[in-house]
Amino acid sequence: MPVYKAPVDDTMFVLNDVLGIQKFNNLPGFSEASPDVVEAIVAEAGKLAEEVLFPLNLSGDQEGCTRHDDGSVTPPKGFKAAYDAYCQGGWIGLSVPEAYGGQNLPYVLHTAVGEYMSSANMAFAMYPGLTNGAIAAILVHGSDAQKETYLPKMVEGVWTGTMNLTEPHCGTDLGLLRTKAVPQADGSYKISGQKIFISAGEHDMSDNIIHLVLARIEGAPEGTKGISLFIVPKFLVNEDGSLGARNGVSCGAIEHKMGIHANATCVMNHDEATGYLIGQENRGLAAMFVMMNEARLGVGLQGLSISEAAYQSAAQYARDRIQGRSLTGPKAPDKKADPIIVHPDVRRTLMQIKSINEAGRAFALYSALQSDIAHRSEDAAARQNADDILSIMTPVLKGVMTDRGFDNAVAAQQMFGGHGYIEEYGMSQYVRDARIAMIYEGANGVQAMDLVGRKLAANGGRAVMAVFKEIGDFCEENRANEKLAPFTKAIKKGLNDLQAATMWFMSNAMAKPDNAGAGATDYMHLFGLVILGYMWGRQAKAAQELLDAGDARAEFLANKLVTARYYMERMMPETAFRKARIEAGADSVMALGAAAF
Amino acid sequence: MPVYKAPVDDTMFVLNDVLGIQKFNNLPGFSEASPDVVEAIVAEAGKLAEEVLFPLNLSGDQEGCTRHDDGSVTPPKGFKAAYDAYCQGGWIGLSVPEAYGGQNLPYVLHTAVGEYMSSANMAFAMYPGLTNGAIAAILVHGSDAQKETYLPKMVEGVWTGTMNLTEPHCGTDLGLLRTKAVPQADGSYKISGQKIFISAGEHDMSDNIIHLVLARIEGAPEGTKGISLFIVPKFLVNEDGSLGARNGVSCGAIEHKMGIHANATCVMNHDEATGYLIGQENRGLAAMFVMMNEARLGVGLQGLSISEAAYQSAAQYARDRIQGRSLTGPKAPDKKADPIIVHPDVRRTLMQIKSINEAGRAFALYSALQSDIAHRSEDAAARQNADDILSIMTPVLKGVMTDRGFDNAVAAQQMFGGHGYIEEYGMSQYVRDARIAMIYEGANGVQAMDLVGRKLAANGGRAVMAVFKEIGDFCEENRANEKLAPFTKAIKKGLNDLQAATMWFMSNAMAKPDNAGAGATDYMHLFGLVILGYMWGRQAKAAQELLDAGDARAEFLANKLVTARYYMERMMPETAFRKARIEAGADSVMALGAAAF
Repeated sequence: MPVYKAPVDDTMFVLNDVLGIQKFNNLPGFSEASPDVVEAIVAEAGKLAEEVLFPLNLSGDQEGCTRHDDGSVTPPKGFKAAYDAYCQGGWIGLSVPEAYGGQNLPYVLHTAVGEYMSSANMAFAMYPGLTNGAIAAILVHGSDAQKETYLPKMVEGVWTGTMNLTEPHCGTDLGLLRTKAVPQADGSYKISGQKIFISAGEHDMSDNIIHLVLARIEGAPEGTKGISLFIVPKFLVNEDGSLGARNGVSCGAIEHKMGIHANATCVMNHDEATGYLIGQENRGLAAMFVMMNEARLGVGLQGLSISEAAYQSAAQYARDRIQGRSLTGPKAPDKKADPIIVHPDVRRTLMQIKSINEAGRAFALYSALQSDIAHRSEDAAARQNADDILSIMTPVLKGVMTDRGFDNAVAAQQMFGGHGYIEEYGMSQYVRDARIAMIYEGANGVQAMDLVGRKLAANGGRAVMAVFKEIGDFCEENRANEKLAPFTKAIKKGLNDLQAATMWFMSNAMAKPDNAGAGATDYMHLFGLVILGYMWGRQAKAAQELLDAGDARAEFLANKLVTARYYMERMMPETAFRKARIEAGADSVMALGAAAF
Repeated sequence: MPVYKAPVDDTMFVLNDVLGIQKFNNLPGFSEASPDVVEAIVAEAGKLAEEVLFPLNLSGDQEGCTRHDDGSVTPPKGFKAAYDAYCQGGWIGLSVPEAYGGQNLPYVLHTAVGEYMSSANMAFAMYPGLTNGAIAAILVHGSDAQKETYLPKMVEGVWTGTMNLTEPHCGTDLGLLRTKAVPQADGSYKISGQKIFISAGEHDMSDNIIHLVLARIEGAPEGTKGISLFIVPKFLVNEDGSLGARNGVSCGAIEHKMGIHANATCVMNHDEATGYLIGQENRGLAAMFVMMNEARLGVGLQGLSISEAAYQSAAQYARDRIQGRSLTGPKAPDKKADPIIVHPDVRRTLMQIKSINEAGRAFALYSALQSDIAHRSEDAAARQNADDILSIMTPVLKGVMTDRGFDNAVAAQQMFGGHGYIEEYGMSQYVRDARIAMIYEGANGVQAMDLVGRKLAANGGRAVMAVFKEIGDFCEENRANEKLAPFTKAIKKGLNDLQAATMWFMSNAMAKPDNAGAGATDYMHLFGLVILGYMWGRQAKAAQELLDAGDARAEFLANKLVTARYYMERMMPETAFRKARIEAGADSVMALGAAAF
């Protein structure tokens, strides 16, 4: 009963009219991405998502994955065929260099497409999603031989990838990890240890699974400085690229999870498995973070994806379900009751979600564009500026969009009343699936600490200053425009709160670091409110200019202005609240003894 | 792995030191409730919850209920024995008149005890909980013969009760209901129709199930004015009180729900079932609301219950799990990492939940005490004042405590990282169970509209004025007390926001009712923030006075003051945010066409 249609028009508005990706034609890959090509790709992705992935979403949740006694794992019915269709479409390699079979198109396009895939079937999209993370790490840190051995098959999709990081006793604090790597005479290593929560860890959709595994080489230092990253293939790869012996890595169990049932989340046992060092010894965390940063953007996008999918079903239900009468008199007098969309509280819920989704889409694509600039620009200053901005956006996108995405899924479920609680309606699945995005790839509290404890202060605050400058300039440049003033004024007010909170940290967190920790989550959300506000400012400006120019999408553009106004009126006042919480400091937070809880 | 211990000390502090229930000794039932008796009862309830109900919570979720081909339903293993123990303890009749086998003790005590039962096992507690709702309706609207026939067995627990209201096409808007009642020559009715989402609808723990069913008598007016309430027993009752023939009401299916798996949520088919009118013809909604109001308080309490249970497990995990180091240097230098409770963001999460739970407990008990006064006082003015206050508290407690309770369960789950997502840890269950409380007995948007659309304006605003006066008086009376000033100042500021928002509705919602609807949910939460703040004010005052008097609970009382301070600093600033959202009005909420969503 849930419905899903890829929001192609909105994606195209953001890419073309808000971000103006055509302006970046000088970057490699962008010149191939003409508006027609982009629209064709995005529409094709939408079709795959709607017609192939979405019909398997609810059934995949209900069936789940099955582990057999021999340790093999079968995903739900239909997944293998859908995965084949996904691979045949070339979606894994969309923004991977052509040398490895990819299309080298912009990462921003990969992101636009990725939203639809996760909306349609988040558990499915994780299988190729993990592969993309592993590809990114091998691209940056792998040797030429490793790239040639693994990447073409992974880009083709006949081999998939995973991240093997977490162990039972350590997740956030990887310095505690115990999986060990023993050097062998041939330059390889024997890897032994147990990894848990390994998404897409075992399944039969690909011929081989390339595990990227964090382990400690015998004799390496304790803590994070002794961790290395290894390639551990499920099947060893012969010189000629054919598959050899089964490696000593196997699935010991699949977890019983709250959601994403269709993704095989595995306990992976490494028992003297053959592994190959990737990058430098003891520099595994740096290599892992290439994967991790890409994964964090992807997880932030999942927050948007589920929010959008849940919203669409809720909007449909609100138009169909009749119950009660409008406060201003019957709107469907021919029926026994009005559709519930007439009720202001229902509509407020829809506007709330819509205002976050449309800004969130712009936010995700804006962040992906920074990644493109940072990786593809020939201008060193532009690269640095984009990389700075991306370093801030990564934890904010991950933390804020997954928190908001979950809240939105809950709000969408709420509109179904009791039916929302019944699994067959699909809304429970959205809530259960969205929940994991707040946890994995660094729980959102960790994102907040990354932002406050690491990103703010890096290079003397250069990155955060770059963000403030961009938003401040936008407000300043459009201040005199009367039509945009309601937006720029509200954004500027939010930016002032954000800057004041930043100053507060500078003055109060040096001497007392707990002040930073106690305010971190509120600061991350304060940042998110301002960024989403800025995204609405950019959208409102684009919409207004197009309307003034007589663009044919008049209703779509007028609705943008209304939704922007909703956001300014109903969301931006939250910045002052977040600032007040931050400025309360750590005293009352830290005063109680541990036993008092 | 989850843990639960009934918070008896905190309950006793609220009952004795904050609410001072001994002051109400002149009310029937209260004089029997001496401090010793109360403490013994509360402790005994805690023991039952901890030792009998809690061990069945996770297993009950995992096993769920089973419907057999003959329509019979079996609850999870252990439930029948636990139910027998619950009945033997006399818990159903705790506050029911002695004439029907109850103990006539205060409802506030029933509420204190009820918190523990739902914390330990919400799905279990609903079986007797529904019985209590049905008892309440029969007590108020049943004939003497009906009371004598049904109440003693229900109080004993050998018969249970249900509410049969919802139909597939109507939940909130009961005026649409189609179940029909055809009068018979003997004064009974034949009831036919389908009811859905019927909690505890069918099971084998009691000898009989007394369904209270809303139906429309043939020829009755359309809409809510043609609805009557009927008693439809699963087995007809003979003149001598023994069980007769099986009635034409049966369970057609049990729903596949997100949570409360151990409660049998049934589709109930009435096929010319024999029913007996309760109360007057066509006045069924009024009779139903006796049940419903009691149920709403009970559901608000469930929000607190799950929040408390989830919190306790999270606190335990935060003390045990080691990961990372404190920002201010190692706190457990003998270990490889510190327990995560040293991290300010973890502690902020715990403080956040604690500050809401302890105020929520006071709020629930305060509301229950109003119910006692409204029903038991001999002073008409006191009865009216208490009834007025309760009329406001009912939607606020239901809506706010279930929203907050769910958020808290999610926050508690978050502290477990990936483990929180694994069913065996029990945190997913708390989130899934808590979710229903926001929906049933009137979805929270309906509670908000009840507050804004009905309760605010009733009797010229008398009820809301009574609440404002009580809180305003508290601030005024304690204004000069320097130790309490930080609390009273913050509460007063929140009260000002609440009063301003109330005024805004008065000025702006008459001409444009959508302004009320668009602000209703924010208003409900604004109200909740102030009430919970007031509860912290009362607790802080009691704690300070006891501390000054050298009470032995020095640490407990000092912690109260810290937690009160946390609430004032971190929660009260939200009132201004809620007020700003309300004052934004309905324009941007209502501007889009239905197709734009």
